[in-house]
Amino acid sequence: MQNFIFSNPTKIVFGEGQIKELANLVPANARVLVTYGGGSIKKNGVYNQVVQALEGKTWFEFGGIEPNPHYETLMKAVELVKKEKIDFLLPVGGGSVIDGTKLIAAAVDFDGEPWDIMAKNQAFHSALPIGCVLTLPATGTESNGNSVITRASTQEKLAFGSPLVYPRFAILDPTTTYSLPPRQIANGVVDAFVHIMEQYLTYPVDAKVQDRFAEGLLMTLIEEGPRALKEPTNYQVRANVMWAATMALNGLIGVGVPQDWATHMIGHELTAMHGLDHAQTLSVVLPAVMQHQRAKKHGKLVQYGRRVWGLMQSNEEELIDAAIAATRQFFEQMGNPTTLSGYGVGRESIPKLVDMLVKHDLLALGEHGVITPEASREILELAA
Amino acid sequence: MQNFIFSNPTKIVFGEGQIKELANLVPANARVLVTYGGGSIKKNGVYNQVVQALEGKTWFEFGGIEPNPHYETLMKAVELVKKEKIDFLLPVGGGSVIDGTKLIAAAVDFDGEPWDIMAKNQAFHSALPIGCVLTLPATGTESNGNSVITRASTQEKLAFGSPLVYPRFAILDPTTTYSLPPRQIANGVVDAFVHIMEQYLTYPVDAKVQDRFAEGLLMTLIEEGPRALKEPTNYQVRANVMWAATMALNGLIGVGVPQDWATHMIGHELTAMHGLDHAQTLSVVLPAVMQHQRAKKHGKLVQYGRRVWGLMQSNEEELIDAAIAATRQFFEQMGNPTTLSGYGVGRESIPKLVDMLVKHDLLALGEHGVITPEASREILELAA
Repeated sequence: MQNFIFSNPTKIVFGEGQIKELANLVPANARVLVTYGGGSIKKNGVYNQVVQALEGKTWFEFGGIEPNPHYETLMKAVELVKKEKIDFLLPVGGGSVIDGTKLIAAAVDFDGEPWDIMAKNQAFHSALPIGCVLTLPATGTESNGNSVITRASTQEKLAFGSPLVYPRFAILDPTTTYSLPPRQIANGVVDAFVHIMEQYLTYPVDAKVQDRFAEGLLMTLIEEGPRALKEPTNYQVRANVMWAATMALNGLIGVGVPQDWATHMIGHELTAMHGLDHAQTLSVVLPAVMQHQRAKKHGKLVQYGRRVWGLMQSNEEELIDAAIAATRQFFEQMGNPTTLSGYGVGRESIPKLVDMLVKHDLLALGEHGVITPEASREILELAA
Repeated sequence: MQNFIFSNPTKIVFGEGQIKELANLVPANARVLVTYGGGSIKKNGVYNQVVQALEGKTWFEFGGIEPNPHYETLMKAVELVKKEKIDFLLPVGGGSVIDGTKLIAAAVDFDGEPWDIMAKNQAFHSALPIGCVLTLPATGTESNGNSVITRASTQEKLAFGSPLVYPRFAILDPTTTYSLPPRQIANGVVDAFVHIMEQYLTYPVDAKVQDRFAEGLLMTLIEEGPRALKEPTNYQVRANVMWAATMALNGLIGVGVPQDWATHMIGHELTAMHGLDHAQTLSVVLPAVMQHQRAKKHGKLVQYGRRVWGLMQSNEEELIDAAIAATRQFFEQMGNPTTLSGYGVGRESIPKLVDMLVKHDLLALGEHGVITPEASREILELAA
């Protein structure tokens, strides 16, 4: 185990009916901005629950935050925050709404062009407090300090992170996910699954607790992901998926262990160039990374196959083959093809995707920093 | 899964050499009281590391906090805090030192007799901030809001808990545990193990993440506990034990699930009456509780046997027998007898122990509240 620092200040308020707790969780005299996306919360009753819970408080609203939230949109929200002297932000929605609201929080008092927080890694020294209502289990943003923002005008998609933008609280009511389209549930399960794999499938450092936790989350998603599609109003299934997705990226399983993230980096280029959903890109890239890096990941691949999939092959290479096949099959069972061709992306795109990795200076990916652009090309060929 | 609220604000600073981080973690202008126990930290170098890290800060010290920390001793520390206008508490040691310092923190501004915080469950509304250096993995107190205090004059041992006494930070350096006597390591592993069991071995509520996490921690302690005894300076082993013990009782695995704690309650009477170490009492009582409650705990006992011990019996009663036997054998392997007679306590003590449970109003223990004094008597008979 490597040395680490772990801290996660987000208060989780979990379960059916918890949205009403906003009445207590939002500071009494706050001037609140409720942010949300395309309006699904108005159809599924979540918006009304929020409005009821905020009764008597001073609040405003800003809707229309896009999937892959647009910088340009968020800057309009910043203007509203300044104009109305907002001092508390309440995103209600999925990862994009919460990610976007984190940038709003950081940008309000930022001295300069807020895009530079992402583009030039410029520090900010304060942020408005955030509390959130999560309606889509997937990214873990509800209890971490990370955010990914897209600049529509240039098609750039960049990330930032800071302890200042951890939500103070996150309300997770599994019933709010009942009305999600199957594709969003599938993507959420795959996204959480790959978050865990990026922190788990590296090389062994004898971090037994972190390994067991990661394996437990993976097994939970394998058991509950397909059921979440088949039984969309099964409360316990949705609750398990929601809690697993939060735990997948709240920092806990990644402490003291190496991390990979090559799959995410390569996948981002696929989203940017071909518009695949984030989790669709992960479904394509992860099995190929597992195959390409099987020698360097040998120890953890064997452990993964045995513990997560219960594989019994005595020949370790055969066991690894089976583990990769099982992973691929799981993504396909969730409805996500695991090849580029499955999304209509041909081999001719591969050189362009590699060019973009080079342009973005992603020249040494993975836990060993050995996934060069040439290796990324090979990975994409394996994924074709 | 049941509804829950989870929050844990303690910043964990984990790994070899981390004590020097006190220089950054303790507020710059604080007036610090370093509290500790019998002085083992002066022998193993921890005290010197703390002194070096505090160089340039204003600090005082208070040693001599006992195992099962005495109220009377702690009240002397409160006088020192008031006299020297201390505004930050820094316990350095195991669970007793940290537990005791939590009471100091709560008592300083308490209006009344601080014993009533435990005895009459009186609320307190402020507490001095605490940061801690943990040197004995066991109780989890380094990142929770719980404390157990003993009044020497009356032999009462009572608990309190409050979000106000969560340590702000906890430094966990596994090398500080190298010099612990085997008995303390054994007790720490058993204590952590039973903390997990109290939150896990109840009845199924389909909380898959919590179950997998609990099982992962149990397996880690089963793998690493005996190695911690055999290889006292194996860093990775001590690191895994230390992290598992913290995760065992920081609130995480207990969210949204029923909890038991009968073993602890019955065990406390054994410590009070016969002076057994806390974890020794747990080693005696838990297997008997498992046996006595096997019908009500059937589902989880089967799951525990299969997942934690890898048992394959198709007959579930035989599997449960084997799971209880494996648990007993594990405690014995750690050096703790699992019967009353193993500690020289005869059957004649059982009625007196039950009388004490009645006196302490512990009339309905366990996750169903069905462990009456008569059932406790039967459990103690099974443990004879």
